[in-house]
Amino acid sequence: MAASYDFIAIGSGPAGQRAAVQAAKVGAKVAVVSPLHLGGVCINTGTIPSKTLREAIIDLSGSRQRRLYGMGPPVSEVTGAQLLARTQAVIQREREVIRHQLERNGIDVHCGFARFEGPHEISYEGPDGSRGSIEGRFVLVSVGTVPARPRELDVDHETVLTSDDILSLPRLPQRLLVAGAGVIGVEYASMFAALGVDVSLCDVRETFLDSVDGQIRELFRSQLERGGVRLHLGERIARLETGPSHHHRVVMESGHAIDADVVLVSAGRQGNTAGLALDRAGLVADDRGRLKVDAVYRTAVAHIYAAGDVIGAPQLAATSAEQGRLAACHALGLPTEARGELLPYGIYAIPEIAWVGKTEEDLVAEAVPHVTGLARYGEIARGNILGDFDGLLKLLIHRESHDILGVWICGTHASELVHIGQAVMALGGRLEYLVRTVFNYPTLAECYKVAAFDGMNKLRGYGGKPPAAASPAC
Amino acid sequence: MAASYDFIAIGSGPAGQRAAVQAAKVGAKVAVVSPLHLGGVCINTGTIPSKTLREAIIDLSGSRQRRLYGMGPPVSEVTGAQLLARTQAVIQREREVIRHQLERNGIDVHCGFARFEGPHEISYEGPDGSRGSIEGRFVLVSVGTVPARPRELDVDHETVLTSDDILSLPRLPQRLLVAGAGVIGVEYASMFAALGVDVSLCDVRETFLDSVDGQIRELFRSQLERGGVRLHLGERIARLETGPSHHHRVVMESGHAIDADVVLVSAGRQGNTAGLALDRAGLVADDRGRLKVDAVYRTAVAHIYAAGDVIGAPQLAATSAEQGRLAACHALGLPTEARGELLPYGIYAIPEIAWVGKTEEDLVAEAVPHVTGLARYGEIARGNILGDFDGLLKLLIHRESHDILGVWICGTHASELVHIGQAVMALGGRLEYLVRTVFNYPTLAECYKVAAFDGMNKLRGYGGKPPAAASPAC
Repeated sequence: MAASYDFIAIGSGPAGQRAAVQAAKVGAKVAVVSPLHLGGVCINTGTIPSKTLREAIIDLSGSRQRRLYGMGPPVSEVTGAQLLARTQAVIQREREVIRHQLERNGIDVHCGFARFEGPHEISYEGPDGSRGSIEGRFVLVSVGTVPARPRELDVDHETVLTSDDILSLPRLPQRLLVAGAGVIGVEYASMFAALGVDVSLCDVRETFLDSVDGQIRELFRSQLERGGVRLHLGERIARLETGPSHHHRVVMESGHAIDADVVLVSAGRQGNTAGLALDRAGLVADDRGRLKVDAVYRTAVAHIYAAGDVIGAPQLAATSAEQGRLAACHALGLPTEARGELLPYGIYAIPEIAWVGKTEEDLVAEAVPHVTGLARYGEIARGNILGDFDGLLKLLIHRESHDILGVWICGTHASELVHIGQAVMALGGRLEYLVRTVFNYPTLAECYKVAAFDGMNKLRGYGGKPPAAASPAC
Repeated sequence: MAASYDFIAIGSGPAGQRAAVQAAKVGAKVAVVSPLHLGGVCINTGTIPSKTLREAIIDLSGSRQRRLYGMGPPVSEVTGAQLLARTQAVIQREREVIRHQLERNGIDVHCGFARFEGPHEISYEGPDGSRGSIEGRFVLVSVGTVPARPRELDVDHETVLTSDDILSLPRLPQRLLVAGAGVIGVEYASMFAALGVDVSLCDVRETFLDSVDGQIRELFRSQLERGGVRLHLGERIARLETGPSHHHRVVMESGHAIDADVVLVSAGRQGNTAGLALDRAGLVADDRGRLKVDAVYRTAVAHIYAAGDVIGAPQLAATSAEQGRLAACHALGLPTEARGELLPYGIYAIPEIAWVGKTEEDLVAEAVPHVTGLARYGEIARGNILGDFDGLLKLLIHRESHDILGVWICGTHASELVHIGQAVMALGGRLEYLVRTVFNYPTLAECYKVAAFDGMNKLRGYGGKPPAAASPAC
């Protein structure tokens, strides 16, 4: 007879793992069904490999510093094998962290690809052919996503790749075309450009990174292009013409052609639900393999939840973990107040983008009276020391209340720095807090103060009364 | 007749510069008397050179990354000349930033070394022998400090240096003795060790970095020693025995001897007041050249203020700037509420230390009921990616109120990250905020959440009631 659990998570990425731990902490009997490698896309093919590669590329190519010191282009000391070895080491360590966490919480891990046999019954088949079957009072579908396949190109994993293939690239391409200018596309495009690869980035849409504040997006775009990425928006790929010894050519519907030895397809991702036999549980995925959920992450079947990338945007690890936690809380009758309404976002391109709150376009559309406060990294000592003169921190400030409505950063360490603004916004700090605060010198965090002064000056231009907490002079 | 001003700042470091700008913003007629190079010790010989060198050493030697990638010791690609050129470029740019700021605010800059001729009259003599004299209704003494000279060693700027000489080091020493384990001493000791120099660090005291939380200090000490710095505490230098071709030997009173080709003396700093003719203004400096001030930075003479390093601890740029601003505000009758009571501190050694609030020893001494929340960088993905497994973030949490009483960080980017905790503390956020918040993944900022969970678990161990805002499970 199949083992029976209170809670089963299918998948061990951030959502499944966090849900399982949450359920176990309150005494539930919990199982995770996971393919051989724990951690899901996040650890094995997505976030961790790409961020490790990024760090390695920035550090080892030393592109920025070498320029500062007049050293010329990076030495090709960094080999693909070194990058790969380092990435595998980080992945291995992260898998172990998850394994220990699941063990410590008494969670059973069943290794294999899961399939519904009925609404409560899950079977799995391991890589060695071993099979098993378990039953769960509650089930969480947290299977993540797989790269979507484009219609125009045939993914052969050699000339035409998806991001899943990056770690097995036999050599660094000389000319790379990244097809799809979403977050993953721009991240990889900027990384390969930093390695000295000739990179083109195309998208069928006329715009890109639409959720990013316009001013920040334009700044990013100019830095991306200065970094050597050629952007081709509004171009649809018609076909690939293969040539000898990696001399291929991608022809657009416009007739425009781009030479490339490798094409990285980044056409979005779709829910990894194809093999789950969802119909046996009474579930139906949408045309991108995704599951629809309600506010507490419940699917159309009351005891089955879904969380993480499989339910769609924002598809970020931290958010997925929180969704998983909330799903487990709801299933087990725990309070489910959402945490961290002020979600931070990060795009780990070169340069980095991070934000919390609204865009300036949002505020204009909602007719919210506001000013911006700007600080360029080049204005502060730390930016000067780092040689990042172009970074920008942008505050969106309510013109009457002086509340901070959004924080946008494009530049070095953006993804870390955004949490200062997040805390100020979440805890009701206003512009005056940032004007008043003493920051370590020299730090990039000083941008908050410089931007706050800039905002304060603009507020005076509106004839607003000087805020109570700050002296009229600064 | 001497030109007459409402406000004169002697010195153009952070205190003088900020005071002058503050005074000018409210319409005062303002002058700054400054030696040839604007920016004081901060820009020219202290903070900026040492932090630029540090960044260069970390980036160019790539010591951490090279180890991660199994690359062996740093290539000696980095020459002293390159480090020097980069440092001079940063200094030059920062001087220009200050010059523009003073110009933009209509502040007169008089170039030369200042001297009191009377309580309101200041004369100055420029590097070209030009002289002048001005009068001020209010005067700020913000002349900074110079390195203190030790009794036991003769500073010849070649074998025996102070930190002022670092930028003119003719070559990298092979064996360096740093005498004095204060902040400046440990910063330079750790930097030279990262460059592969054989470094010893001695101090007459049995302890060092006494203002740092004990657990953090011990962690720092072990990393410093692992980085190759040999620490000799409780040792007083007796004499230097010079030998041929830089083979010198420093003999301690204990009889212990340390071989070194260069000795960097870091015996604290003293107020740079010797040439000011303070007596003509009715002022007296203490035995370390420092001026005593009251809570509004007024000296014993009512119209003369002092701010910045010349008044003693904490001698940090950001704090000095704030002192200067407050002095100017008081002189000109503006509100002088202190800003940023929660001052952040940073020690830019390798690794970095930063903090805000109390030490654990403070809490024990004051019998404040508390728990700690700890997060090691090695536990989080970003620490793993960076290869900084040993970094530590430590929260001090009030056992009943769950207020955050202190944040201590030893590790990569500590000086930036501390501002997240500073905002939480200043804005009344408690442990629950950090437990609840979603952080970007992967970031070092996640340490706050991991440490908060650790603290929460310890609070449960004390049988405290679960806090209202968090679910009982996490």
